[in-house]
Amino acid sequence: MSSGVIDLRSDTVTRPTAGMLAAMSSAETGDDVYDEDPTVHALEERVAGLLGHEAALFTVTGSLANLLGVRTLVPEGCELLCEAQAHVVRAELGAHASWHGVTTRTWSHPRGGVDLAAVGRLMAPDAGPYLVSTAAVAVENTHNFAGGTVQPLDDLLALRELVDPAGVKLHLDGARLWNAHVATGTAIADYGRTFDTVAVCLSKGLGAPVGSVVAGSADAIAQARVWRKRLGAGWRQAGVLAAAGLYALDHHVERLAEDHANARAIAAAVAEADPSAVDPDTVETNIVLLNVGDRAGRLVDEARAEGVLTGTVGPGVVRLITHLDVSAADARRAAKVLAALVH
Amino acid sequence: MSSGVIDLRSDTVTRPTAGMLAAMSSAETGDDVYDEDPTVHALEERVAGLLGHEAALFTVTGSLANLLGVRTLVPEGCELLCEAQAHVVRAELGAHASWHGVTTRTWSHPRGGVDLAAVGRLMAPDAGPYLVSTAAVAVENTHNFAGGTVQPLDDLLALRELVDPAGVKLHLDGARLWNAHVATGTAIADYGRTFDTVAVCLSKGLGAPVGSVVAGSADAIAQARVWRKRLGAGWRQAGVLAAAGLYALDHHVERLAEDHANARAIAAAVAEADPSAVDPDTVETNIVLLNVGDRAGRLVDEARAEGVLTGTVGPGVVRLITHLDVSAADARRAAKVLAALVH
Amino acid sequence: MSSGVIDLRSDTVTRPTAGMLAAMSSAETGDDVYDEDPTVHALEERVAGLLGHEAALFTVTGSLANLLGVRTLVPEGCELLCEAQAHVVRAELGAHASWHGVTTRTWSHPRGGVDLAAVGRLMAPDAGPYLVSTAAVAVENTHNFAGGTVQPLDDLLALRELVDPAGVKLHLDGARLWNAHVATGTAIADYGRTFDTVAVCLSKGLGAPVGSVVAGSADAIAQARVWRKRLGAGWRQAGVLAAAGLYALDHHVERLAEDHANARAIAAAVAEADPSAVDPDTVETNIVLLNVGDRAGRLVDEARAEGVLTGTVGPGVVRLITHLDVSAADARRAAKVLAALVH
Amino acid sequence: MSSGVIDLRSDTVTRPTAGMLAAMSSAETGDDVYDEDPTVHALEERVAGLLGHEAALFTVTGSLANLLGVRTLVPEGCELLCEAQAHVVRAELGAHASWHGVTTRTWSHPRGGVDLAAVGRLMAPDAGPYLVSTAAVAVENTHNFAGGTVQPLDDLLALRELVDPAGVKLHLDGARLWNAHVATGTAIADYGRTFDTVAVCLSKGLGAPVGSVVAGSADAIAQARVWRKRLGAGWRQAGVLAAAGLYALDHHVERLAEDHANARAIAAAVAEADPSAVDPDTVETNIVLLNVGDRAGRLVDEARAEGVLTGTVGPGVVRLITHLDVSAADARRAAKVLAALVH
Repeated sequence: MSSGVIDLRSDTVTRPTAGMLAAMSSAETGDDVYDEDPTVHALEERVAGLLGHEAALFTVTGSLANLLGVRTLVPEGCELLCEAQAHVVRAELGAHASWHGVTTRTWSHPRGGVDLAAVGRLMAPDAGPYLVSTAAVAVENTHNFAGGTVQPLDDLLALRELVDPAGVKLHLDGARLWNAHVATGTAIADYGRTFDTVAVCLSKGLGAPVGSVVAGSADAIAQARVWRKRLGAGWRQAGVLAAAGLYALDHHVERLAEDHANARAIAAAVAEADPSAVDPDTVETNIVLLNVGDRAGRLVDEARAEGVLTGTVGPGVVRLITHLDVSAADARRAAKVLAALVH
Repeated sequence: MSSGVIDLRSDTVTRPTAGMLAAMSSAETGDDVYDEDPTVHALEERVAGLLGHEAALFTVTGSLANLLGVRTLVPEGCELLCEAQAHVVRAELGAHASWHGVTTRTWSHPRGGVDLAAVGRLMAPDAGPYLVSTAAVAVENTHNFAGGTVQPLDDLLALRELVDPAGVKLHLDGARLWNAHVATGTAIADYGRTFDTVAVCLSKGLGAPVGSVVAGSADAIAQARVWRKRLGAGWRQAGVLAAAGLYALDHHVERLAEDHANARAIAAAVAEADPSAVDPDTVETNIVLLNVGDRAGRLVDEARAEGVLTGTVGPGVVRLITHLDVSAADARRAAKVLAALVH
Repeated sequence: MSSGVIDLRSDTVTRPTAGMLAAMSSAETGDDVYDEDPTVHALEERVAGLLGHEAALFTVTGSLANLLGVRTLVPEGCELLCEAQAHVVRAELGAHASWHGVTTRTWSHPRGGVDLAAVGRLMAPDAGPYLVSTAAVAVENTHNFAGGTVQPLDDLLALRELVDPAGVKLHLDGARLWNAHVATGTAIADYGRTFDTVAVCLSKGLGAPVGSVVAGSADAIAQARVWRKRLGAGWRQAGVLAAAGLYALDHHVERLAEDHANARAIAAAVAEADPSAVDPDTVETNIVLLNVGDRAGRLVDEARAEGVLTGTVGPGVVRLITHLDVSAADARRAAKVLAALVH
Repeated sequence: MSSGVIDLRSDTVTRPTAGMLAAMSSAETGDDVYDEDPTVHALEERVAGLLGHEAALFTVTGSLANLLGVRTLVPEGCELLCEAQAHVVRAELGAHASWHGVTTRTWSHPRGGVDLAAVGRLMAPDAGPYLVSTAAVAVENTHNFAGGTVQPLDDLLALRELVDPAGVKLHLDGARLWNAHVATGTAIADYGRTFDTVAVCLSKGLGAPVGSVVAGSADAIAQARVWRKRLGAGWRQAGVLAAAGLYALDHHVERLAEDHANARAIAAAVAEADPSAVDPDTVETNIVLLNVGDRAGRLVDEARAEGVLTGTVGPGVVRLITHLDVSAADARRAAKVLAALVH
């Protein structure tokens, strides 16, 4: 953001770095609709490998990666279970229902977590010709609207154990899985292998301009490729974008620790000014939620006036997200501005 | 039920009575696709009037009545909230999603009730171009899978107050609204007016062979008529069935009290034999749920062997439903059989 | 039709006869959603047998029978070919696309017939991951909007030969297949066996108040049963309607010859008054199309004023349909009225 | 294509040029989901202006641009008419039906042209509650599967005159509209203004790696923006791709004349060797269809063995497409190879 504006609205706002642009310019490309783009192939193989899956497909967004992943797991008229604030039911405009007839039921968890008891009560696999059958459960890690919370691997493994005997599948919305990995040290592949399909984004914390990836079995990904085309989202020389994604994997994963530190620093400053607004211990990754009640709209406006862009998610909640284009100095300045405003 | 079998699987199993068949045979009919069947008109006007709505449409099932009612309230890609065991999300095979792209989120309530706090937390009306907007909330009264529980009018009025300022609409799945009316004395119209669209069934407790009705504004019902045709469910001389519905409204509403008494009698007998299986005080209408754990499958089989048909809904839960074709004597015999089996 | 009005708008307007009502009243019934209605079973078995198919399903309309039949043959995103004035693309409100994502291409034929060359050019089976694959061709026999024209068995067999090597399937919209049978003497089963799925109606020429049947393989019909439920069109004691259908099969098939004679008589009378309006030789069954150009609207109005109800289908075309409730005397009177008006 | 291979399979295979990559690297970007990418804005405004429309939206593919354009014109369950070999019904995997319930009927024209008489016969606007209403007609210009044929402006204006009184709308699939413009000299805006919505591609003849644009009224494009998001095809720093599109508009439009000359040269050479394979006068733009009957598969294989890549479209038809990465010398070599093979 030019002229000193600090944009904390989302980690989607990052612009490609010089190194990334250079990688894009020198990428070897081909026609990816014909499955002939070598850089796309390299990206897909690399992400599949990282996640411990057979195959992967490069997609224009994380929403599309989720849509394709879920589609391979849930037949029309069957059910996906998820937490009530998950991106797949809150921020994808009903696409899973609208486009493929996936029906959803939800449990609520304050930190977006897996509630094993709730899943156990809701789950109805092979429910016969009169009742909806549960086909899959989706988990979001980290969970955006719950404030970048990490879902611990143990919880995910316990979920796997619960659903496996029932033949119910698991989809991971890992738009910010990289953040979970960096925050916990858990290997990407340990997360990845726990799920049947996984979506990850290159365009959020990793800083690529465009692009996400869905991984799964070779068969699932072959189906997803055809469905991607049906949605009008096959692309041609996508290698220019895949190159950005590969560059991001090389250079922007481990540095997410800086974003996490910056987020905690902002939270700590705000908490000092108003302990009711946020508990810094709840900031696990790069997202900070400030609970400021009636002051939310005014806080966003006043911060904007001072060059700090934020947004609201839900009534009374202001969200800040740190990222590649927010330096430690930027974070300090934002912290100061916000602390003064909540005081 | 011939040969002494007592069928408690559902109140959908009733056969038309002699009086009802006579009414059907003498019905004046016309082509209802052309909106010219006088008996259908009479039924639709009568039900609209009973529910305090402008108009109504005769449909082949309660599922279709729900589907059409919800469709008039929820645009594609928008959201319907409901309790997690509601018929609309559990027993309509994902039709709302599959057919019209309605996306759903749910709260859980042990008696299928309205959880105002949960609705308040979930509801996101006019959520803008990035987030799913909540368009309506559905309530089921009585609630089938929760055991025929009545949703008190006060709860419904409180829900109305909650959603009105937000512009969120209300749909009532009143497949067994007649039972709620008889159990509580609350007027049908008091329930009906609290909702924007209402579905009621003539083929369950009321004993008609086929048919339900959806009521709403004149505009909503005009749309529903076109959508009914698109679903291949417009019908021609439907007056033969509407006559059964009118007969049922005349003769089979108040007698539901007998079904309720029979259900309580069965519950009481079973509770005497095994107090852990059911608390008779929870039996508010014509449905009894027996919590018998691992014994559920065997109980159903053994009861069938003695001429008492029941079913399971969910793990460990046996469901019994009383109806027009179950006399007080039948209920006594069924109670005896079941009590002996759970003992 | 009471009070001397002769209703030639459609053969859907017939009311159940006394004999039919008696059959309905004495029908044995059960819960058809549980697949336990013996009269429905009898009807389904009888129609399956008549059509030379393994199984059949009783549906509320011919549109639904078509929708279910086509659904079992055409996967989402694949293609159905048909004549451009076919009921499936003209008069089912886009349901095949709206509900299941069936895409359609059409050929045009003046008599609604099979254009083998056109089918050959359009057909693209197994077209791969980039192009739409043709899954099935639909034929309508008799063809409503073309004027009740019969599709000769030889044409249908030639179509079968064309599509078989390509693995393309055939659906027959036989809403008025009974008329084709009576007009030509071709056995119902000879028509039926030429197709993979067949829809027939009991509520048009046959005079039942409500009901159609879709026939096909046992597997296709099992799928269709689930999809019927998802559409909200499973029904309970449908035996009361199935009984009307069985009665119609017993008593109202061969008498269609009278409707055909009446239609020809009307056409002949009109042609005598205005030879440009209709060629009686084109009237093969119970439908007469009068090509009267600008006079169409006025003709319908003036005929109505004299107690003869007709309708328009397309610009300048008035359609008359004879049926069970139009006697030879009625036909003579209608002919006289219409001849005077076109003169 | 490296190592001397000449790729005539499609004009989608071009790789970004050095100049284009430089433009991409220096593009100013922002988050286009938030509608803040200045380069995307510049591209959308430029294309809207070129086409004589109020607004435009940058999309990942031409299929998506078609899908969004048609969606704004055709309500669910309504009808789009088009030529039977049009990309929208042949090469978009049924998306219009699958995703939005658009139903289609088609006319056939040997050169993919507008058959006014056929449109007149098929068109049924405002057809009421029982019949499908025609909402729009789509035209493809140039027409891919008909061999890059140009639809003359006069034909399009005549179509406009035909549909306007009926309230039927027009969509232009202008994936290769640039070729029609260059071949005829007709202004892009003259084509554009004749239609309600227009899709154009930057990734075919124009040589951008990824991207298309849909233009229409401000209201239509606002809707299309939301629907693009629902399809999972909103994108973030899309300016890097929009910059390629702008570069292509600056540098690669007028040069399409070279592609057309190359295509004609190839056709002429093949025609000299086998006059039955192609009439060079039918080559209007950059696509050549060779009608080689049984030899098609072998011809493709043998040409590939000599470094000339082609493909088949339909039985017996080999398609060649010239583009930015095929020089005049490449065209001469390809012509020689193909002429020798068809001889």
